[in-house]
Amino acid sequence: MNELELVERIRRRAAKARNLVLGIGDDCAIYQPAAGEQLLFTTDLLIEGVHFLRETHQPSDCGWKALARGLSDIAAMGGRPRFCLTSLALPGWATTRWAERFYDGLFELARLQKTVLVGGDLARAETIVCDVVVCGSVPEGQALRRDGARPGDAIYVSGLLGGSALGLAQRRGPAFRRHLRPEPRLKLGIALREKLKVTAAMDLSDGLSLDLHRLCVASGVAAELDGDLPLWPGATLDQALHGGEDYELLFTLSSSTRPPRQLAGVPLTRIGTIVGGRPGVVRLGGRELPLAGFDHFRNPQKPAAGR
Amino acid sequence: MNELELVERIRRRAAKARNLVLGIGDDCAIYQPAAGEQLLFTTDLLIEGVHFLRETHQPSDCGWKALARGLSDIAAMGGRPRFCLTSLALPGWATTRWAERFYDGLFELARLQKTVLVGGDLARAETIVCDVVVCGSVPEGQALRRDGARPGDAIYVSGLLGGSALGLAQRRGPAFRRHLRPEPRLKLGIALREKLKVTAAMDLSDGLSLDLHRLCVASGVAAELDGDLPLWPGATLDQALHGGEDYELLFTLSSSTRPPRQLAGVPLTRIGTIVGGRPGVVRLGGRELPLAGFDHFRNPQKPAAGR
Repeated sequence: MNELELVERIRRRAAKARNLVLGIGDDCAIYQPAAGEQLLFTTDLLIEGVHFLRETHQPSDCGWKALARGLSDIAAMGGRPRFCLTSLALPGWATTRWAERFYDGLFELARLQKTVLVGGDLARAETIVCDVVVCGSVPEGQALRRDGARPGDAIYVSGLLGGSALGLAQRRGPAFRRHLRPEPRLKLGIALREKLKVTAAMDLSDGLSLDLHRLCVASGVAAELDGDLPLWPGATLDQALHGGEDYELLFTLSSSTRPPRQLAGVPLTRIGTIVGGRPGVVRLGGRELPLAGFDHFRNPQKPAAGR
Repeated sequence: MNELELVERIRRRAAKARNLVLGIGDDCAIYQPAAGEQLLFTTDLLIEGVHFLRETHQPSDCGWKALARGLSDIAAMGGRPRFCLTSLALPGWATTRWAERFYDGLFELARLQKTVLVGGDLARAETIVCDVVVCGSVPEGQALRRDGARPGDAIYVSGLLGGSALGLAQRRGPAFRRHLRPEPRLKLGIALREKLKVTAAMDLSDGLSLDLHRLCVASGVAAELDGDLPLWPGATLDQALHGGEDYELLFTLSSSTRPPRQLAGVPLTRIGTIVGGRPGVVRLGGRELPLAGFDHFRNPQKPAAGR
């Protein structure tokens, strides 16, 4: 199968959408924005040996995860996914059969989350590299941002933490399935935007310690964690604090807001309080947390892991 | 420098734009579409050893070219560029200094073409991989597409062909500069959309023979080339037909349209006629041309070249 044939097969599987004027097959896709719509854009790399391992991740898991990363960013801003574009570079050993199974996983998640594939690029490379762009939309001015947390706000997370890191260590069981096929919290993100007075929000992709630090830097505040984190069964505090890829939502609420115990079917747990002080500092039990989450350029020698 | 610091440096250099609500630094960028605007999306990979060589391409040339590829797709549809997102994966030998020089070239072209960088992703990889998404816009329903060519239409190209392939072979002189820093034909694309009755258009990225084949497949027609192609001085007919990366525009006009000799400062040359027949067939002097342009999956063993 050559490149034109593979593109044609992918094109035939791609769904249509109301606002999509033109999908795969021309120089660009064409999208007709709706009135009052603001568009969200995010792009995420998925690289063999860095974000996944060939031994542990099926091609369809890679396709699922490549899209899930971007959808989680859309969820973090309270958006509805609209469309995505996928760039995929394959080494010689990866056949077009590999590519088709990759798209199996991607289309499976896309169907579940009502996202359509509208374009992309294909190339050869030494290792598998994928980059997925996702576009989502929110009503004008209503996106949940990172920069609105204020001292006194309560800090919450959805779901359980540390499951993905535990799964990567165990390579079996429910935690591993969670690691392989993370579920972007799109319904929750929309419910947070519509129902609660969220002051700041983001998704947990690189670990609570690093991601909360980022939220605090963006908002110009510091944070005190309670230490009573909602741990995935069997996960350690270290995995919950510094393990990445839980893809839960981290958000802050003004102190007057009383959220329900669960929203959109996902439990919500208060884990701390926003405080004044040096922007970005995160304390647990009075001690400043190290920034031990994942940083590609600070931890280049870290053994290849699923992140 | 760690990942957060590099992102911060890039963020400070990124320009602002009227319709950009939020740029680099949150989970997503936020864009406010204007009334009556349709948005164009394209994504292009740039991979070391496939699309460029470390020995011949400076980091700033890579940044220029990574963006130029997407801008050329926007030009092909008659769009104005609005914003871009850049995913960049770097091996251990490439320092953050390399990354900063890459962004020098990217920002240089972005400034010239009024495009702003609104987001992206960074990661480690075994070789340099970059993926750039560009968003452009056109007035509703006015995008130039590939699928409208009809028998009897005249086929045109802008500029001269074969320069990029010649430059890659020579590795010096004006043709090589053209290869390293292609100029997306954005002003020409807009002028074609506004001033001429274009029936189909696309950009020449993989070689005239393969790209005209694609235009003909999309339009369900065939093509006869005159053989009198506008050659770059010193380029062979083979380089003009099958060499890629000229980033000129290929377009068709209804037979009643008489275009000027040049438009937006670029010469236009009639090179053939759209005819009926098996869709996708391209003939030159009565003989069917082979599809010798670049196909990543048909030519995986082709020596690394700048494409």
